[in-house]
Amino acid sequence: MNTSRIGIWLIGAKGGVGGTALLGLTALQKGLIDKAGLVSELRQFTAANLADWGRFVVAGHEIRRIPLAEAVERFTAENRMIDPKLVAACRGELEQIDRRIRPGTIRNVGQAIAALADADLPQEKSPREIIARLRGDFQAFLDAEKLDHLIVVNVASTEPPAPNPPPPSWSELDAAFDDPQSTLPASTLYAIAALGAGYSYVNFTPSLGSAPAAVDELARRSDTRHYGCDGKTGETLMKSVLAPMFARRNLQVLSWVGHNIFGNMDARVLDDPANKQSKVVSKDRLVREILGYAPKTIVSLENLPDLGDWKTAWDHIHFQGFLGLPMTLQFIWHGSDSILAAPLVLDLIRFTELAHRRRHVGPMPFLASFFKSPYGVSDHNFERQFQMLEGWVGIAAG
Amino acid sequence: MNTSRIGIWLIGAKGGVGGTALLGLTALQKGLIDKAGLVSELRQFTAANLADWGRFVVAGHEIRRIPLAEAVERFTAENRMIDPKLVAACRGELEQIDRRIRPGTIRNVGQAIAALADADLPQEKSPREIIARLRGDFQAFLDAEKLDHLIVVNVASTEPPAPNPPPPSWSELDAAFDDPQSTLPASTLYAIAALGAGYSYVNFTPSLGSAPAAVDELARRSDTRHYGCDGKTGETLMKSVLAPMFARRNLQVLSWVGHNIFGNMDARVLDDPANKQSKVVSKDRLVREILGYAPKTIVSLENLPDLGDWKTAWDHIHFQGFLGLPMTLQFIWHGSDSILAAPLVLDLIRFTELAHRRRHVGPMPFLASFFKSPYGVSDHNFERQFQMLEGWVGIAAG
Amino acid sequence: MNTSRIGIWLIGAKGGVGGTALLGLTALQKGLIDKAGLVSELRQFTAANLADWGRFVVAGHEIRRIPLAEAVERFTAENRMIDPKLVAACRGELEQIDRRIRPGTIRNVGQAIAALADADLPQEKSPREIIARLRGDFQAFLDAEKLDHLIVVNVASTEPPAPNPPPPSWSELDAAFDDPQSTLPASTLYAIAALGAGYSYVNFTPSLGSAPAAVDELARRSDTRHYGCDGKTGETLMKSVLAPMFARRNLQVLSWVGHNIFGNMDARVLDDPANKQSKVVSKDRLVREILGYAPKTIVSLENLPDLGDWKTAWDHIHFQGFLGLPMTLQFIWHGSDSILAAPLVLDLIRFTELAHRRRHVGPMPFLASFFKSPYGVSDHNFERQFQMLEGWVGIAAG
Amino acid sequence: MNTSRIGIWLIGAKGGVGGTALLGLTALQKGLIDKAGLVSELRQFTAANLADWGRFVVAGHEIRRIPLAEAVERFTAENRMIDPKLVAACRGELEQIDRRIRPGTIRNVGQAIAALADADLPQEKSPREIIARLRGDFQAFLDAEKLDHLIVVNVASTEPPAPNPPPPSWSELDAAFDDPQSTLPASTLYAIAALGAGYSYVNFTPSLGSAPAAVDELARRSDTRHYGCDGKTGETLMKSVLAPMFARRNLQVLSWVGHNIFGNMDARVLDDPANKQSKVVSKDRLVREILGYAPKTIVSLENLPDLGDWKTAWDHIHFQGFLGLPMTLQFIWHGSDSILAAPLVLDLIRFTELAHRRRHVGPMPFLASFFKSPYGVSDHNFERQFQMLEGWVGIAAG
Repeated sequence: MNTSRIGIWLIGAKGGVGGTALLGLTALQKGLIDKAGLVSELRQFTAANLADWGRFVVAGHEIRRIPLAEAVERFTAENRMIDPKLVAACRGELEQIDRRIRPGTIRNVGQAIAALADADLPQEKSPREIIARLRGDFQAFLDAEKLDHLIVVNVASTEPPAPNPPPPSWSELDAAFDDPQSTLPASTLYAIAALGAGYSYVNFTPSLGSAPAAVDELARRSDTRHYGCDGKTGETLMKSVLAPMFARRNLQVLSWVGHNIFGNMDARVLDDPANKQSKVVSKDRLVREILGYAPKTIVSLENLPDLGDWKTAWDHIHFQGFLGLPMTLQFIWHGSDSILAAPLVLDLIRFTELAHRRRHVGPMPFLASFFKSPYGVSDHNFERQFQMLEGWVGIAAG
Repeated sequence: MNTSRIGIWLIGAKGGVGGTALLGLTALQKGLIDKAGLVSELRQFTAANLADWGRFVVAGHEIRRIPLAEAVERFTAENRMIDPKLVAACRGELEQIDRRIRPGTIRNVGQAIAALADADLPQEKSPREIIARLRGDFQAFLDAEKLDHLIVVNVASTEPPAPNPPPPSWSELDAAFDDPQSTLPASTLYAIAALGAGYSYVNFTPSLGSAPAAVDELARRSDTRHYGCDGKTGETLMKSVLAPMFARRNLQVLSWVGHNIFGNMDARVLDDPANKQSKVVSKDRLVREILGYAPKTIVSLENLPDLGDWKTAWDHIHFQGFLGLPMTLQFIWHGSDSILAAPLVLDLIRFTELAHRRRHVGPMPFLASFFKSPYGVSDHNFERQFQMLEGWVGIAAG
Repeated sequence: MNTSRIGIWLIGAKGGVGGTALLGLTALQKGLIDKAGLVSELRQFTAANLADWGRFVVAGHEIRRIPLAEAVERFTAENRMIDPKLVAACRGELEQIDRRIRPGTIRNVGQAIAALADADLPQEKSPREIIARLRGDFQAFLDAEKLDHLIVVNVASTEPPAPNPPPPSWSELDAAFDDPQSTLPASTLYAIAALGAGYSYVNFTPSLGSAPAAVDELARRSDTRHYGCDGKTGETLMKSVLAPMFARRNLQVLSWVGHNIFGNMDARVLDDPANKQSKVVSKDRLVREILGYAPKTIVSLENLPDLGDWKTAWDHIHFQGFLGLPMTLQFIWHGSDSILAAPLVLDLIRFTELAHRRRHVGPMPFLASFFKSPYGVSDHNFERQFQMLEGWVGIAAG
Repeated sequence: MNTSRIGIWLIGAKGGVGGTALLGLTALQKGLIDKAGLVSELRQFTAANLADWGRFVVAGHEIRRIPLAEAVERFTAENRMIDPKLVAACRGELEQIDRRIRPGTIRNVGQAIAALADADLPQEKSPREIIARLRGDFQAFLDAEKLDHLIVVNVASTEPPAPNPPPPSWSELDAAFDDPQSTLPASTLYAIAALGAGYSYVNFTPSLGSAPAAVDELARRSDTRHYGCDGKTGETLMKSVLAPMFARRNLQVLSWVGHNIFGNMDARVLDDPANKQSKVVSKDRLVREILGYAPKTIVSLENLPDLGDWKTAWDHIHFQGFLGLPMTLQFIWHGSDSILAAPLVLDLIRFTELAHRRRHVGPMPFLASFFKSPYGVSDHNFERQFQMLEGWVGIAAG
């Protein structure tokens, strides 16, 4: 039996998703909660020998100074539905994790995110200096905790789209790291810091991360793995099961309108049109790609601070059936964003750890079902994506 | 190229589903409508050499005397959304079909359906006499139209559940046909009349039909095929894509409430608690079988004559995620029941005709995706059921 | 300035509504919450000299032994949205109130309610003995606390409809009190005990209470006042503002369907068809009485324990406009039943106390806006009912 | 009995609202439809001696050349729910009306509306010349049809907000009419043409119309009357009954989100941000003014051509009740815009005709219940507005 200790490094460790994942991981390690919401705990993955929760040790980067335990308490008070006793029971562990959280970087993250940062973040001149610092943080954690491997997961706020595409090859990209004018965003610098050192990297956000071909090249050169992007938690998950239904029944979708209202920090950042753009593109493309044609679509994301972490999505799907008749499906999804996302982050870490043991190199398309925009996978049918996961886990297990 | 003519025999030919299927088939034969709503017209089935619409000739049984064209006109006026010009353009063909519709039987169909029948239906003493008459009607149609094969489809109103199960073997069942007290319902008599003569039989309703093992035995003995039951058109179709989503994400469904309101003849018949029972059982079982546990469920079907053929379903799904948090999905489906069902009836006929050419014998589980309660298939995951259809068609085509 | 102390006597003091009202009253007395949800705190009633929260002292009847503070804690944990710190801050006061709660009666309350009662309730033979005991409880409380007046409010579970109507005059009713077979339900016995002693009585439930003419006669003879019935909190409140809108616009309502799902103790009791009947009648009549004609209506109430105190109502209103066109309004109301009801109980107490000071005798129709079935008022238009309240308060103030 | 003939002049006569109003008026005159949707046909107005439908003669202005009957047929085919037989039965009368429709003006209507106009509209240099032409059209109609009075109603598309406010007095405004650079929009020029000649004017749109004080002054000088603006038909009507409900129950509205999707010509024009601005302001203000405080609000209007004239509004109201608990009301309104608006246009004409007979001069605040932004009325409570109408009609009748 494998008993090595595995490092988790969360970028944005004190945000809603990060904090909830850490609260949940602690609660799992202490046996305080059941397995609801965790894909990796499904019966069909029992034989896969996934790592026990107790084997993970956490650290991370963050741009705000607020103590982790306090961030989690604020979040849970605002959420109103999380049992405050659970938070109290995990306070000690959260404080311990907090000591391992280091200052992040706000390089090219856009105005909305930069405004959230505390004043005393290190301000390096060039991408190369930032990468060096981040990698130093990783290494210190591995050394201190005597870890076998590190899995870096980006759960930070969504950056605006990068103004120009990075060069296609690693050598060109690497050559530009000394340019202080580089527009490479933080998410990609973290990915490079992780992958170049042979660690695994997962991008749970729509930010650029490890998407560029040059970064994938780096991962392959380093015999490591990466994947993303943009966790599929609510409205888009619904789209990825409903759009195939319309397709299979030859019901022509005329229009698909999706209005999302929510009020957490993510909402505040997405209130900036630049950042919102990244998210809307990711949410909107899917329906078109599943159906194979382009119905009229609208996707809106709106910040209503009174809703806190609770997101309500109203989707209105107008479709045409036999004899040309128009009909309508509407759905209203009411969920807590962080509560839906956090277990997926933990699942991704467990499956990535398995991929590490299996020496998988490059992108991990078998993780497509977790993402709105899975790297290199154009099939957005959720059930078929899930069958890819079952297949990959099964082959390995068999 | 195959150019034989194939007979379609609709039981309940003048009902909402039957009439809409006949209007639609005529419109397809005349090139008046496009392919929306027809599964068999999907790109992935192009290579399968399914029969052209022009090769089908229609007849049927019915318990009401109203002229078919008038029934279709009434229905479309009530529906309000179907183009009256389309009906006018198909009137001549509907009148021709009408001449081939024969009086059906109301043996053991329950009070609610019997009340819809006109007074002068033949009243045979025993099941054997009824079967003989029905089979005579089939034969006369084949002879008159020089048909190669006949596909009998039950689209009549839902019968109440049969009071006692039929005997398990064909010889025992056959032996009981002279008993005037037999409780065998009409839907099963039609199935026996069809299958015993080697014709194909499809049960689109929750009625008993060809479900008994003894009837399946008859089908196999006669080298023919059959399938059912209960067409999956709206709310239950949604359940068969949403329940797997909750299962794959390990989100625990606490309760699933489904309220259906509609006002067509089906609704009137289902207002009788005996008939409603058959339908509710069929709609309710699915969620439990997909999830593998039994959340609290409510299914209601209510007759509101002002809604006509338009059915609105409101489903409220309460589920529990990570850290035990309750969340909610609601959907509102607004569709025309007959418009959703009719194309599936035509699809089933085409796929059954292909099965006939391929000499398939017995139940046709590859048609499971069309049914709420597919005979012999316990997997209700819509996508996986659809893959079975793709697989079967593909193997044959390949 | 009036500084007398006023007694509140809650029947069903430990139920969801009762417990929430007591938590809220305590929180108001301690200045821990703001005035949201309290009608009597609206600006237009400032001049009316309503009693300060600090002037009320509480006692009550209850059929369960569970400590009040524990009942409130259980309820708030189940509700999930109430701040647990608020409950902790009020614990001491709730324990004090608990000492003044006496065992109630389950005479003719139906099987569903009787099943909730603890075993050791006093079991008197005749209504007269019960009334005497209840009145003794009231008197002891007034004496002990030196109170000027007592306002008795019924917030207990809904009884089944009484099998036969009580006699129309007080003398006849009084004469029957020694009959051990009397079918008079508990709610009416409490009302008689209160009104006969000159106290005010308010029936917040659909139970019989003070509805009989003979009980009204008693109230007038005793120079006191009473009102009911059935607090208007959610779906029915919506009906009382929406139905007038349809009426004023001459939009013909074809059907009005209302499905209510919830899971508190009220829901459990209403799961018994006998008890449900009282509630459905009260909820259903209103639309018909506002519109002046009878559209097809459906009202369902369903018990889903997983929803706890949160009630979701889905209403589907199908209406016909100009040129006969059908259109649809749907609403989904998601509220906590007890949280909506509790402040209205407190408001009713304050307005009743004012009526007592103004020496109002008999029914209090100016309180109609609080009730689904206001005694003697057939105008269910919420705005006009509210204007009656404004008018009555204003005349007194002016 | 009064038997004089009254002229109706519709600005935008061939649009969805105009065409539906004309179809409906014709159908009423021919006794083909019942009174659903018509406020003026309510029982409480029977005694008011409103003009019979048969007394009205119609003409109008329009910027498109399409024949009226064809515009109505296109609209009804797109609507799908209007009985085509009704349109056929009214064709002759619509053709007759068409002969009385004159070319309108697109002066300062914005790019979106101007793009809809046909090329050969008269192009006057100054406002004064336009007004003269319009007034000439009115006069010719009165002379030809021997009419006693003319009621001009603006049902044209929504103009963008005017860039600068008109001068406050009539003499200043009049003095500027020769300025070819005047920014006065068409809607106000029509109003001036009508009011200056002593005719009545009603502005059913959010355009400027008769809102300026200087135009009101002109109406008073001419002993005539006017009112507006922006017909209250669907989502905003709902707001004007629901917001008072929250206010009366002291439930604090935290946020009110309203998303409107529709696809008619109105939607196309409102797709232009300039024109949309006028509408959103009108829809958004109301909630704030009823509540007396400013919750976070969002109002969106989106053009989905596939929806045609059917508008679906989803409103999400998040409110806070007792103990600070957040709760939610959502509603989904699904109606045909023109079908809701058209009867109100006819009602306004009848009530305005009565005001003319009663020699009412100036704004008509008793018509407030018909408008989103009623001139000079800040009370948006629908029931109270309706009581103003009942009061005014009653006083006159009594």
